[in-house]
Order: sequence, then C-alpha cells, then structure tokens
Amino acid sequence: MSRQHSRPVAVPNPAGTELVERVNAALRSYLRQRRNDIARVDPRVADAVGALTAFVLDGGKRVRPTFAWWGWRGCGGQAEGPRAETVLHAVSALELVQANALLHDDLMDGSDTRRGNPSVHVAFARQHRDSGWQGPPERFGAAAAILLGDLALAWADDMFHGAGLAERMERRARPVWASMRTDMLGGQYLDIHSQATADASLETALRIDRYKTAAYTVERPLQLGAALAGGSEEIVAAYSRFGADIGVAFQLRDDQLGVFGDPEVTGKPAGDDIREGKRTLLMALALRSAREHRDEEALRTLQAALGDSSLTADGVDRVRATLEELGAPAEIEQRIATLTKSAVAALAEAEVAEVAATRLLELAQAATRRRA
Amino acid sequence: MSRQHSRPVAVPNPAGTELVERVNAALRSYLRQRRNDIARVDPRVADAVGALTAFVLDGGKRVRPTFAWWGWRGCGGQAEGPRAETVLHAVSALELVQANALLHDDLMDGSDTRRGNPSVHVAFARQHRDSGWQGPPERFGAAAAILLGDLALAWADDMFHGAGLAERMERRARPVWASMRTDMLGGQYLDIHSQATADASLETALRIDRYKTAAYTVERPLQLGAALAGGSEEIVAAYSRFGADIGVAFQLRDDQLGVFGDPEVTGKPAGDDIREGKRTLLMALALRSAREHRDEEALRTLQAALGDSSLTADGVDRVRATLEELGAPAEIEQRIATLTKSAVAALAEAEVAEVAATRLLELAQAATRRRA
Repeated sequence: MSRQHSRPVAVPNPAGTELVERVNAALRSYLRQRRNDIARVDPRVADAVGALTAFVLDGGKRVRPTFAWWGWRGCGGQAEGPRAETVLHAVSALELVQANALLHDDLMDGSDTRRGNPSVHVAFARQHRDSGWQGPPERFGAAAAILLGDLALAWADDMFHGAGLAERMERRARPVWASMRTDMLGGQYLDIHSQATADASLETALRIDRYKTAAYTVERPLQLGAALAGGSEEIVAAYSRFGADIGVAFQLRDDQLGVFGDPEVTGKPAGDDIREGKRTLLMALALRSAREHRDEEALRTLQAALGDSSLTADGVDRVRATLEELGAPAEIEQRIATLTKSAVAALAEAEVAEVAATRLLELAQAATRRRA
Repeated sequence: MSRQHSRPVAVPNPAGTELVERVNAALRSYLRQRRNDIARVDPRVADAVGALTAFVLDGGKRVRPTFAWWGWRGCGGQAEGPRAETVLHAVSALELVQANALLHDDLMDGSDTRRGNPSVHVAFARQHRDSGWQGPPERFGAAAAILLGDLALAWADDMFHGAGLAERMERRARPVWASMRTDMLGGQYLDIHSQATADASLETALRIDRYKTAAYTVERPLQLGAALAGGSEEIVAAYSRFGADIGVAFQLRDDQLGVFGDPEVTGKPAGDDIREGKRTLLMALALRSAREHRDEEALRTLQAALGDSSLTADGVDRVRATLEELGAPAEIEQRIATLTKSAVAALAEAEVAEVAATRLLELAQAATRRRA
C-alpha cells in the first residue's frame, strides 16, 4: 500500500494516527485509480471527481473504518499481513458511504459549509457563477453534489466488493454491509420527515439517533469487522449493545455541540441545527419539560426558533438560555454518562481480544466526553 | 420465483413479455423483502419505500435486464433452471440503478412528470403541501427523491451481489458492474456540465450519448451477461461494437421523440428537452448547419429557445420548423440507419448463439425504428 503523503492527523493517540493514515492511503490510491478510469468519459468529469477526492481526503476522523477495524481485531483478526491489508481496504470503503451521506445531507439541509470549507454544492455553484455559465448556479451546484454523492456510493460498493476478500469473508459481511447503508438512508429519511411534520417526540428523536448515527457509525461497522473475522455470536451481540449505546451517546454529544459548541471546533456556524429545525433529543427533552411546567414563554421561544433560517446570533443565545433553564443539557449529559457506562459493561461481558477492548473503550470515552 | 400479478406489459412480442414478467417478479419479491427490513427503522420510512416500489414496478420496458439476459444467452447461458434464475435475479438489479438515474435526473432537470405520472420529487412535495407540513414543500420533495434514489442505488448493489451467483461468475462480472454505474454517472455529469457551459459541439453530444446511454443501456448490460456466462473475447468485442452503435442510435431516436414525439407516447410534454436546454446531437447538427449557412435567424431561434423554461407551444413549433429547414432530423435519421446497419454487421461476425442473435437484432430494430 503506497503512502505518498503523511501529513499529521488530529486524533488523540498515535495508534489511532497510524490507522487513520493507512485508511487515507487506501482511499487515496483507490480514488486515483477510479479518477483515471473515469477520465475515459471526459476530462471534465475527472476534474469533478478531483473535487470529490479532495473532499474525501481533506478531512474526517475515519470513525467508521476505525470501529470496523477494531471490530475485526477484537475477534482475533490480524494487525498485519496480506489479509489485514485486504480488510483495511474493505473497511476504508465506509468513508465513501460517508462522503455520499455528507454531500447529500449538506444539500438537503442547505448547509453552506463543511469542515470549515464551502460544501460541495456551494463550491460548484460558485464555480458556475464565477465562470458566467448558463442557468441558475444553485441548480448546477445541486446536480453536481447529487451526482458526486451517487458516485461515492457506487464506488463504496466497488471498493468493498473489489477489496479481494476471501469468498466466505465477503459472504458473511454482505448482510451487514446491506443493513449499514439501509439504516443510514432510512434514518436520514426519518430525520427529514420528522422535521417536515414537526414531530418533536422523544421516541422519534431516539429512533433517528439509533439508526442514522448509532447503527450506521458504530454498531454496523463493528459487526462488519466481526463478520469479516468470523467472530462469535456472543461478541457480535456485545458489539451490538456497545455500538447502539455509544453511537447514541456520540449523537447526543454532537447535538450539544451543535447548539453550545465552538464553531472553530465544529467547523459549522453555531445554532445551525436550530435554524435547520433539527429534531434532536436535546430539543425534544426541552419541549417536553416546557410543556410539563406550562412554561409558555419557553415553548414560544423554542418553537419560533426551530427551523427559522434567519435566526440571529442573539436568537441562538436566547434558545441556549432557555434550554439551560429547562434543564435539557444537564439531562443530556446524564444520558451520555449512563449510555457510556452501559456500553462499557456490554463490552466487558464478551471475550473481545484485549488490545481491541482497550482501544474501543478509549474511543468510547473520546467520542462522548465533554469538549465544549 | 413468485408471480403475484401478471398484468399485461406493452412490448412488441411474447418472448419479450415473458422476460419482462420474470424481471418484474424478481423486483417485486426483492423490494417487498427490503421494505419489510426497513420497517424496523420506522413505518414512515416503509411508506416512502412503498413509493419507490410503485415507481419501479409501475413501468419501464426493462431494457437493461433484457440486454443483459440476451448477452448471457448469446454466450450459451441456459434459459431455465437454478443458474438461469440466479442470473435473472442479478440482472434485474439493473432496474434499481435505473430507478436511481430517473429519480435524480428528474430532480436535476426539474421535470414534473415521468411516465405520465408526477415525478417522485413532485409527488412528495405535493404530499407535504396537502398535509400542511412545515418548511418549503419543494425542499422536502427534493430530499425524498435524493434519499430514495440513493436507496435504489445501494439496493441495486445488494440485489446484484446477493443474487447467489457462483464466485467465479461474480468475479468476472464485477468490473463490468463497476464500469456500468461509473459510465452512467460520468455521462450524466458531462450532460449537466455541457448544459451549463452551453457546449454545443458535436463531440460532446456524442460523448454523452456514448456513455450516458450506449454504454449504460446496451454495451455494459450485454457485457455483464457475457461475463456471467464466461463468454469469449470475440463475443465481448462484438457486443461492445453492437452496444455502442445501437445505444447511440437509441439515444438519437429518443432525441427525435423529445422534440417531435407525441406526448401520449413519450409520457413527457413535447419540447421539454428544448426547455431544459439539452445539448443533443440533433441540436448540435442544427446549430452547425445554421452557422455554416450563416442563417442568423435560425441561430437566434434555436439559441433563444434552448434552456428557456417558459417556452410556449408555439415556440416549440418554431424550433421544430427551424430544425427541419436545417435538415437536422433527416441527418439524424441517416445516422440511425447507419449505426443500426453497423451494429447488425458487428453481431453477425461473432459466434453468438442463434436464439440470442435473432432477439438482439429484433431489439435493435424495435429500439431504433421510426415511431412518431
């Protein structure tokens, strides 16, 4: 596996850094090859794929390949050698699924930035505008983001199925691979549906967290690693409980950061979750508390702000103060702590290889601890 | 393979009808199973998948599975038995790739109708509006079409890879499957890029036809069937020439219908290709001819109409008359005839099994003959 560049990557510990670099090298080499392939259609298409490649390689913590990798290692999968390289290549494909999710999510949400850069639909719309092309720039930007997201999804499958896995490994992994993409897309649809119907129930917020984040980000990647290694049912069940709990905790932390986080750290303007009308558990708890206490002013403040795309910074501050008064962020912190504890307990009950168990516990803490 | 319904399907001959019904049965059974799967996320997601299922099952001539099937048969693949059923299931997945292409294409083009029904983004926007939901209905409709298109693309891969193909068959077919989706998406991007840059060159129009239509619709499906059967290099090369020629001829016929066709037959308002600013070969030839003859009036008429979304029916009539005067439709007819002839010759040179060669020639004629 070639490693052209080895720029520093911001993760908490050196073992993680090495894994991230191996994933980046696999993605870089695969995307270079596919970009050369697609140049046969037209150089203009290869240029657009260059933007997709930059998007995939320029950021991201490689969370999903990391969980898949430690899922594999936890079931006795080797760290080095040809089989390990094959598995690493296969699980790196999860980042292309994630590229699809991010490109299409930013378009659907109307998010202008991603990781501090213009989002893909915005960058292509800008190219259109700056070049004085025909038609509405936004329409061109949207079409480019749709097609590049589709390409990322198709290539994710090609990369996974073309990794050179032994047939029995691929056969075991296939149902998990299928469920992982279905959970992500099903969770995304439930998310936009709940925003449209202003469904503020706790149950819906938890379902979205369960599928869009927990299953897609932690549980299925872990299970994918286990399936590749032929792990025991006991470990698969433990991964499932660990993944569901840590994954939801991870989303709850993200929701807190989406409202209270530092834009410098999150790479997104503070309060965008509120402007977009995201039905988070944080918001659901706050609305429930306001109703229980018949706090009409708090209810009005939250309901008026949710989905108000022109909400000012002062408006965001008012929402923050209201959430605090209703005790919602404190309850979320409590839930994160409980979920993390139960995830740790689930993992301790199974015979997960020690090196992996240690790393998974570190990841659980790193992903859910307070950062703001 | 179960066949719940057997409603009549509009294709020219009984052999074709039976194949179409077998493909429909495979799709119906697969989509029912996946819809049951996704109900675990939420019943609201299963409802949305119901709309995707209806879209896939309610129409379509199954052109791509048909070419793949006869590609298989032409290399000696069996017509009945367990292996034939497996192949039929695998090639039916091409229709899910096509569902992705149509859902996303209609959204990118802003097309309101498909097969005489509201297109998917329009139907979901209407549901939003009729239900009095929050936010802009168009945004909800767009998000639903994006996510259902993504789901179709992911499930296409799941259906293909989960069909139960023998490992050596799948290994042979994998590079063709990868190229097929890449050609389609690369061709689509070139299409929207050429519309934006008003690239009216013959070369670009032909490239788009070559990849977006010919490779994706005929050449790759035929090669997929050949790869599954382990066909000879000679047959694969013949399929490639046949597919490239017939596929382009097929697109040229479609372009003619897009301007001169009967909306009752095409299921799309006449002239929509013009309003959308589609850079077809028909238009490229007309523009070239107008320039060569320094026909400024014709140039103005065509350039003003291309991409004018509010073009009236009278305006479309003027474009039609201008195209005729410039001799463009006649030249397209000539090209269709030449391409069909060369495709037929390519097929005759290879040892394609007779039953398949006969059927492929019928399909070539049916797909390219004059219908308006």
